[in-house]
Amino acid sequence: MTAPTIGKERQAELVVHEVIASVPSLRQEWYERAGQRLNSLTKPLGSLGRLEEIAARIVAIREDPRPDCSKKAIFTLAADHGVTAEGVSAYPKAVTRQMVLNFLSGGAAINVLCRHFGIQVTIVDIGVDGDTSTLPGLMRMKIAPGTKNMAAGPAMSAAEMYGAVQVGIELANGAAEQGLALIGTGEMGIGNTTAASAITAVLTGRAAAEVTGRGTGLDDAGLDHKVRIIERAIVVNHPDPLDALEVLQKLGGLEIAGLTGLILNGAARRIPIVVDGFISTAAAAVACALQPRVKPFLFAAHRSSEPGHEALLKFIGQTPLLDLNMRLGEGTGAALCMALIESATKLLNEMATFSSAGVSEAAG
Amino acid sequence: MTAPTIGKERQAELVVHEVIASVPSLRQEWYERAGQRLNSLTKPLGSLGRLEEIAARIVAIREDPRPDCSKKAIFTLAADHGVTAEGVSAYPKAVTRQMVLNFLSGGAAINVLCRHFGIQVTIVDIGVDGDTSTLPGLMRMKIAPGTKNMAAGPAMSAAEMYGAVQVGIELANGAAEQGLALIGTGEMGIGNTTAASAITAVLTGRAAAEVTGRGTGLDDAGLDHKVRIIERAIVVNHPDPLDALEVLQKLGGLEIAGLTGLILNGAARRIPIVVDGFISTAAAAVACALQPRVKPFLFAAHRSSEPGHEALLKFIGQTPLLDLNMRLGEGTGAALCMALIESATKLLNEMATFSSAGVSEAAG
Repeated sequence: MTAPTIGKERQAELVVHEVIASVPSLRQEWYERAGQRLNSLTKPLGSLGRLEEIAARIVAIREDPRPDCSKKAIFTLAADHGVTAEGVSAYPKAVTRQMVLNFLSGGAAINVLCRHFGIQVTIVDIGVDGDTSTLPGLMRMKIAPGTKNMAAGPAMSAAEMYGAVQVGIELANGAAEQGLALIGTGEMGIGNTTAASAITAVLTGRAAAEVTGRGTGLDDAGLDHKVRIIERAIVVNHPDPLDALEVLQKLGGLEIAGLTGLILNGAARRIPIVVDGFISTAAAAVACALQPRVKPFLFAAHRSSEPGHEALLKFIGQTPLLDLNMRLGEGTGAALCMALIESATKLLNEMATFSSAGVSEAAG
Repeated sequence: MTAPTIGKERQAELVVHEVIASVPSLRQEWYERAGQRLNSLTKPLGSLGRLEEIAARIVAIREDPRPDCSKKAIFTLAADHGVTAEGVSAYPKAVTRQMVLNFLSGGAAINVLCRHFGIQVTIVDIGVDGDTSTLPGLMRMKIAPGTKNMAAGPAMSAAEMYGAVQVGIELANGAAEQGLALIGTGEMGIGNTTAASAITAVLTGRAAAEVTGRGTGLDDAGLDHKVRIIERAIVVNHPDPLDALEVLQKLGGLEIAGLTGLILNGAARRIPIVVDGFISTAAAAVACALQPRVKPFLFAAHRSSEPGHEALLKFIGQTPLLDLNMRLGEGTGAALCMALIESATKLLNEMATFSSAGVSEAAG
């Protein structure tokens, strides 16, 4: 795919704004219906804790009293980042494409977890720098061969940003057509913690130093340098913090833009979205800034060890389900979390009630 | 099974002390071997966080460089508590037996989770008050029809306590013979948070009010009453805090004693043990008091919302993997945690290495 023409850009812009407007509100009556069912099951009231909250929220999202979450997929979007020219990562840029190969041959962490938990995994080239045309099993949706260096100017053109968001929107349409009941976000892109930290700083109004971490493993000097590059990118681009699409275009990445579209349209299509870690939550924050009704469709998978994650979690109004000190990305946290969500819905669907099992209820 | 004779008691006592003595120490070389493998896998160093710690510990427990945790079981031990005569639970005592029926017909939360995650679940009557002789699928190891009221005297005789611990030891022997690679603890017993809180108060030296919670759902007055009953039981029985078996006998339950034996012998047989919630951790605390070498064999599944759990977790030296505000017992937290542990070992076993996948390593 070549870069979209001006006509395509206008079209993509219209599609994006149509999706933003079409995200529904969740209705209280579905939470109540789920709560009545949960309280009738053979367990002390509320004793399954957050699993009960999850089950009720899935009922409200799907508007289905017995939601089946067995059909589930993680979309791992891969893209390169021009800012790697500034030496912000412990790994060379070539690793993005090398890891795409690893994903396709089933050797990466995300593959192992998805096999174990019965999750379909779709690898999408939305912006890898390098030829991927001969790789079997890859979904090729390349908008550009990576972003430009955001320390010198905007990471993307508006056309690229809208095109990448539209790719994510199309992925969610495909998911809805396939009947997927649960979507997880994943990403791969050397340099993308730099982009995510820059987005975090601007959207949440924090200092770059506060929301920037070691990524794949920078030392102290590397971390200081990364903070300075992010500060420079923000000064050079001076995005309007209240215009989330501008922030995304100037400081984001093609995979982050794609995930933003996936999240927005996942919500619009009533598919619960499991948001992986720091990078994915940056995309979720852009989506929530564009449309606050997205928030209850999101399940924050885990608390990343990247320091900027906490501010983003607050921004999207979600408390993560897991806290395992992970910082890998790819969708690995989402995969683990999906197992919890699926088991929560199975508890709702399959447990006996006090009356069906002949168990006495609590006194009082 | 009838109550053991004096001869049987002596025999049980010998078996228990033999198991306590036979728990091995874990060897550093196995952690190092696991660490080398983990660092060769296609991910930034340490980026799988606690999943890497889990995998390394399983390698050291099993002394197997590629441990297979797919054969796994939860043992849910059911027993009644004489202290329910004092009105310490929101549910009537009859619920213990009713829930055993529910377990056997597959309608309880533990059944749903074990089906979902491929975990074998074994229901053991170690002390249910009521006839269970006609129930198919139940493992009948009844030591007594419940404990006596600990507010008036010892909950168990020494013979009953040793007999119940020995039941757990036999369960672990059976698990080892079956080739189980992961054991989870579970329990059912109306009144057993009262016993667990009493054990917690004595072993950790805390006030009863500090480590006593609402159990299945007491109101404020019910909670105050429960604290006073626990205080009375401690005064009446005055167990020696340094003699964990005495504490168990006087304030415990038959299922707690059984779990103590399962945990001790699980460690002795080199089977990793996933400790469920508050009641199970009370049993683990007794096991660790008897033999501190048990500690690294334990995986604390989740942080229960019972207030005494934190003190017990500190006592056994483990940080829980999940924090989902659950307080159901049965082994439900252990089931969720087993999914994480199995996936951690699969990551160790199945991920590609940097060299096998042709991925560049980090600079520096």
